[in-house]
Amino acid sequence: MESKGLQPMDSEQLRENAHKMVDFIADYYKSIENFPVLSQVEPGYLRELLPDSAPNQPETLQNVLDDVQAKILPGVTHWQSPSYFAYYPSNSSVAGFLGEMLSAGINMVGFSWITSPAATELEMIVLDWLGKLLKLPEDFLSTAGQGGGVIQGTASEAVLVVLLAARDRVLRKLGKNALEKLVVYASDQTHSALQKACQIGGIHPENCKLLKTDSSTNYALSPNLLSKAISDDISTGLVPFFLCATVGTTSSTAVDPLLSLGKIAKNNGIWFHVDAAYAGSACICPEYRCYIDGVEEADSFNMNAHKWFLTNFDCSALWVKDRNALIQSLSTNPEFLKNKASQAKMVVDYKDWQIPLGRRFRSLKLWMVLRLYGLENLQCYIRNHINLAKYFEGLVAADSRFEVVTPRVFSLVCFRLLPPNNNEDHGNNLNHDLLDAVNSTGKIFISHTVLSGKYILRFAVGAPLTEERHVTAAWKVLQDEASALLGSL
Amino acid sequence: MESKGLQPMDSEQLRENAHKMVDFIADYYKSIENFPVLSQVEPGYLRELLPDSAPNQPETLQNVLDDVQAKILPGVTHWQSPSYFAYYPSNSSVAGFLGEMLSAGINMVGFSWITSPAATELEMIVLDWLGKLLKLPEDFLSTAGQGGGVIQGTASEAVLVVLLAARDRVLRKLGKNALEKLVVYASDQTHSALQKACQIGGIHPENCKLLKTDSSTNYALSPNLLSKAISDDISTGLVPFFLCATVGTTSSTAVDPLLSLGKIAKNNGIWFHVDAAYAGSACICPEYRCYIDGVEEADSFNMNAHKWFLTNFDCSALWVKDRNALIQSLSTNPEFLKNKASQAKMVVDYKDWQIPLGRRFRSLKLWMVLRLYGLENLQCYIRNHINLAKYFEGLVAADSRFEVVTPRVFSLVCFRLLPPNNNEDHGNNLNHDLLDAVNSTGKIFISHTVLSGKYILRFAVGAPLTEERHVTAAWKVLQDEASALLGSL
Repeated sequence: MESKGLQPMDSEQLRENAHKMVDFIADYYKSIENFPVLSQVEPGYLRELLPDSAPNQPETLQNVLDDVQAKILPGVTHWQSPSYFAYYPSNSSVAGFLGEMLSAGINMVGFSWITSPAATELEMIVLDWLGKLLKLPEDFLSTAGQGGGVIQGTASEAVLVVLLAARDRVLRKLGKNALEKLVVYASDQTHSALQKACQIGGIHPENCKLLKTDSSTNYALSPNLLSKAISDDISTGLVPFFLCATVGTTSSTAVDPLLSLGKIAKNNGIWFHVDAAYAGSACICPEYRCYIDGVEEADSFNMNAHKWFLTNFDCSALWVKDRNALIQSLSTNPEFLKNKASQAKMVVDYKDWQIPLGRRFRSLKLWMVLRLYGLENLQCYIRNHINLAKYFEGLVAADSRFEVVTPRVFSLVCFRLLPPNNNEDHGNNLNHDLLDAVNSTGKIFISHTVLSGKYILRFAVGAPLTEERHVTAAWKVLQDEASALLGSL
Repeated sequence: MESKGLQPMDSEQLRENAHKMVDFIADYYKSIENFPVLSQVEPGYLRELLPDSAPNQPETLQNVLDDVQAKILPGVTHWQSPSYFAYYPSNSSVAGFLGEMLSAGINMVGFSWITSPAATELEMIVLDWLGKLLKLPEDFLSTAGQGGGVIQGTASEAVLVVLLAARDRVLRKLGKNALEKLVVYASDQTHSALQKACQIGGIHPENCKLLKTDSSTNYALSPNLLSKAISDDISTGLVPFFLCATVGTTSSTAVDPLLSLGKIAKNNGIWFHVDAAYAGSACICPEYRCYIDGVEEADSFNMNAHKWFLTNFDCSALWVKDRNALIQSLSTNPEFLKNKASQAKMVVDYKDWQIPLGRRFRSLKLWMVLRLYGLENLQCYIRNHINLAKYFEGLVAADSRFEVVTPRVFSLVCFRLLPPNNNEDHGNNLNHDLLDAVNSTGKIFISHTVLSGKYILRFAVGAPLTEERHVTAAWKVLQDEASALLGSL
């Protein structure tokens, strides 16, 4: 850009080049349906296309953009494609993108209030806004007592920080050598992030108890099983301290019964965390709010605005009732960060609510999503995806070669191709092959899971550009590839 | 934006609105010197300016931008201001900003290779590039055996993941109940992130040994002290397992002697981590590379490209020699993420090298910084800041009311106002008051530390817009406020 006397933040260079980048990105979205949804490159493809060291002299932006087009985009799996139905969605939106731009533009590091008061205060306010849209109990809001929300990077970090808060709360009572006795409960459908949090926090692996679920509860955790596990563990001298329930599991959107689980947790002095990373978004609609009934029993609640809420990655909203539990576990107070406002305890310093020290101005994008779209539009957005999932469910049900495996609750349909002649030995390979076949077309991208030993295909509606025609076309791909597979048997 | 039938990712809406945002951000940089560097708002200022719930109906972008101007920017501490000299810098640049835009535009979640092969592969390649610029030993590069680099969010996460890898490596040998015996070593100048990592990982607080430093070593860790501490601990049955050395401490840019520390670590089977979060950037210049001599003894090495290397926050580069140690500690393998490439172990899945599952396409911005600027410009950029710091050091030295407290090594000057009549009782309050006074002017922002009981002012050059005239003006502010303070005594 400049060969002599680098001016790395000249405002006119920024203007000129960023306008170019805007057009590049807008053109990407214009042409996004031309790319294979799942990248079809082979491992190691990029190393052959790029030099093996950084240049000594500057290159032009055009050079770089040409390389993005020719070398990077073929290796991208297009999460924003309207034909992306894998895992869970990771929404981009104009508002979310603008918020990311502004955050990157200001580029401050808001670890303490003083390092940018607006960043901390906007985060508190916007999480109160979102908490109200979700009708969270008031003690999760920052305006009431010791509660409040915080933006974590991911649901993994959210469950980790509350697990640590809960661990240290009990270790302060029992002494640190009690660590080996601490027990965590969740269903076997719980996200692997919980096990990872246990590994990190030093919970003994055999004390991370993932209770079995099956189709009789639609893969929800049974309160009876939980009660029994807790009393068994107490009787052998273990110390139950943490329960993670999920609203909308990753495999099949199972919904754990919060109210009865929460009462068990409370009776046993157990920290109760609710992971609604995916399905939390739906709860801004009155007709879906019932799925988090019982959240008033929880100590912490998490939903990912970066999944299905139009807020670019990363933005995982975590609310707690007792911020001090987080702070006692995660605070540091080095001399070089001391300042009047913090010492006087007049402010929130979010560094003490999270793993990292530094943090981006992520509330901007959530604020912009809420303001530029408004609640009613956001509700329509959710309902539209759920309707599209219902539509897909109907298509599957109408083709006798397939079955819908678990009842659809939100915008995920779990289904599979039935093995010919009810030969279940063949069913898993068949669906594995079908998954491979449809994803290899590049026309759609779906993913899978296993439930009760059966290999299941997951069709998750939720990309911001998805319309009915994309669902129709996806079903056609599935039918065609199924016909080809079944024909070749 | 649309009241009916929300189209949240329409490419033409994106284009139109993002062009407006570019101009808003470019105008911000054009006017950045008009803002107080340190925000002067009072705690709670923003809640009075914003409604207490999200709107039902959409608002216009212009409304939001007006609010950013009127309500948010007054609460921002302007890290990109040319008169920002606090903490350490957090560089923005045109290239870094463009990379952030592109990453937010593509908005993929690259936890596994398959979810966007380009994201994983570009990260490996670009960290090899940067590793070569730093002349890291080959076994840190991804092309050689089991090493490789990974982008973490922050240096806190970097030290945490390697601490966990080291912890679990030793616990696999000794059994998990050995946790209470594990000992970590570092100097008392080490970043508080290490203590936080120990808290998280369940290392007993009394086993996190921060060895005393003083001015006799310019606050570097003494190898003799370390040797003695290790043998004392071994003799009482403890298990030394982790050493963190720092190149460029946060207080005063102290440089721990890597070579001799590393040999002690190796002789004792201790994981040796080098934190060069700030000063690592300088090591791309041949004349500063000597400060990381001995890095060949390290197991892991970290530098923050988001500090002084023009890459927007967050981008913390971590290299390890043994990627399997990370993976064994941090991997999860749930069914819903299984895929051919991962199962065949043909690829790197960065989810297993970090705390979170999801991850942004952060290598794009580092790639763009390296390509759009090139090595020679980047070296000039570093040297220019170091020269400005030398210039400031000279100004301080020429005013007999002040003293430079520790020898300047990189671009940080540690100095203080001498207490009149050598009355040291008064020295700390005096400098505390001077800090408050200069920061309250809004003209500059500096921060402080304490060394050997003395309150010290830190002047860290490193913002991308800083020129000689800003350093001159900053010194004038310091002199004026010092005169006022001394006159009022």
